[in-house]
Amino acid sequence: MDVASELLTGTILAGARAIRWLDDGDPRGAQTLAAVFPHTGRAHIVGITGPPGAGKSTLVNALITEERRRGRRVGVIAIDPSSPFTGGAILGDRVRMGKHTLDPDVFIRSIGTRGQAGGLARSTHDACLILDAMAYDLILVETVGVGQDEIDVVALAHSTVIVGVPGLGDEIQAVKAGLMEAGDLFVINKADREGYEDTHRQFELMLHLRTEAKTHGGGESWSPPLLRAIATKDEGIADIVDAIDRHKEILQSTGEFGLRSAQREREQALTLACAEIMRGIKHSADPAILSAVENREMDPYRASQLLIKNWQEKAPV
Amino acid sequence: MDVASELLTGTILAGARAIRWLDDGDPRGAQTLAAVFPHTGRAHIVGITGPPGAGKSTLVNALITEERRRGRRVGVIAIDPSSPFTGGAILGDRVRMGKHTLDPDVFIRSIGTRGQAGGLARSTHDACLILDAMAYDLILVETVGVGQDEIDVVALAHSTVIVGVPGLGDEIQAVKAGLMEAGDLFVINKADREGYEDTHRQFELMLHLRTEAKTHGGGESWSPPLLRAIATKDEGIADIVDAIDRHKEILQSTGEFGLRSAQREREQALTLACAEIMRGIKHSADPAILSAVENREMDPYRASQLLIKNWQEKAPV
Repeated sequence: MDVASELLTGTILAGARAIRWLDDGDPRGAQTLAAVFPHTGRAHIVGITGPPGAGKSTLVNALITEERRRGRRVGVIAIDPSSPFTGGAILGDRVRMGKHTLDPDVFIRSIGTRGQAGGLARSTHDACLILDAMAYDLILVETVGVGQDEIDVVALAHSTVIVGVPGLGDEIQAVKAGLMEAGDLFVINKADREGYEDTHRQFELMLHLRTEAKTHGGGESWSPPLLRAIATKDEGIADIVDAIDRHKEILQSTGEFGLRSAQREREQALTLACAEIMRGIKHSADPAILSAVENREMDPYRASQLLIKNWQEKAPV
Repeated sequence: MDVASELLTGTILAGARAIRWLDDGDPRGAQTLAAVFPHTGRAHIVGITGPPGAGKSTLVNALITEERRRGRRVGVIAIDPSSPFTGGAILGDRVRMGKHTLDPDVFIRSIGTRGQAGGLARSTHDACLILDAMAYDLILVETVGVGQDEIDVVALAHSTVIVGVPGLGDEIQAVKAGLMEAGDLFVINKADREGYEDTHRQFELMLHLRTEAKTHGGGESWSPPLLRAIATKDEGIADIVDAIDRHKEILQSTGEFGLRSAQREREQALTLACAEIMRGIKHSADPAILSAVENREMDPYRASQLLIKNWQEKAPV
């Protein structure tokens, strides 16, 4: 049996191999993906994002436990910040998910950022498709950090959970404001900490302003809930899973579920095309042009035009 | 007098206009940049990065004051996280820099992330070149957040200052570990806060491990200093500026200063070429291919190949 067929029966080893092939740019990865692609589009993709220190990994761990209790198979994609120099991922948080590693119905995969712009979104999307083909009911995508990574998760997910935490400084609250509009569910974790009431008020205010400003991503019928949790004590976790389930139902009944999936695949095709050309351009770049730029004899904009011409002449159509 | 000539005499209005043109993709931006490009490469570009809540904006503000005291003209590029939906930047931190806004020898420019992968690095680089042409001695590039943004700053700067802060959680310390190897200077800000000693020990340990693992970016002769600061009280600021100056001298004496500049321009040319093609691909994409992907009749990898072919056939060589 080949990897694609094994993968469709849910064999973890086959899934891990396909994801590795895709990450490495091994052609067997794209072949496998092509074979299983028609079987994707079923999994509910849930992004979990928020500032560092919000306890996202612990929350994900608790969500896995609750989803398993409800009989669902769960995939997790954890995006670790990693050094662009060593390529090493930070493993501390993964260790805390340890108790699920022996459960055959839970598949946890860490993805390093590797310092490649656009590469992270691509790898994450590839991994989502593979887990989807393996018939995981739910795929949790957890990102650490604030900024572009979060936006990529939002673009990828059916449902986005924004995790806040009491007592972080002004700057973090400001950063979070940029994400408020993207969230479908809001959770204040570590709710037994000092400052919970203040943070809750801030979130409420932001949600109120948002409601006034526009209708929601999930249609008029969805009003983003604001939930409290203490993930370390499993408090509030069942409510979060209930809310995630309700959001999925609404997305399905409005047709938004399929629309978000379709949009995701289209963006992925465009992203892959761009990445391919990027590789081609770097490979075919005329050293004389690059030297002229380095010596400030030719500006980068002019040079970019020549590099494109260069690549077009060399690349087989 | 045209914008390029005005800009070279340091006229702020001309600089602001050129940066806006470049941001908007107005062809006059690239023309202006081409005209002033030979006059760039002199400014010392200093990245200021670290986790949210580290007080980077306050620190930048204090650094401006000290640099001005030493008679230098200072450019600042502040990268704000912004919503991909509204495009709005968060302005709170900028307000704190208010006291410098009337000083003609300080130019502060905020750049929103706009949710475009790769776009942030390009805009920042463009703005750096314009400020460089305007003969600012020093350009401080401040990023908020952790992750790809920081890595882009590191790629852009001659000198990178990593700002830490006592008492942030494990997760933030872990994130910071990924950046440790990228720093040329380390500053623990808010040094009067509880937990300073612990954070100082952690930083020392990480720097020690790093020294053992490899030689430094600035050559063997540079040992990254670990400094303490209380930016709100102007404490430790002069020491930081001294260290930044020393780093510049060493970069210049080893030839690394010019090498980092050259590498930056080369990367920019490649980035611009990729961005241009990305626009072309999105513009020329055959709707039939995109529909096939959306309906899961064709996988994204296969579709990306066809999209490239598509674009090559339509694009004028």
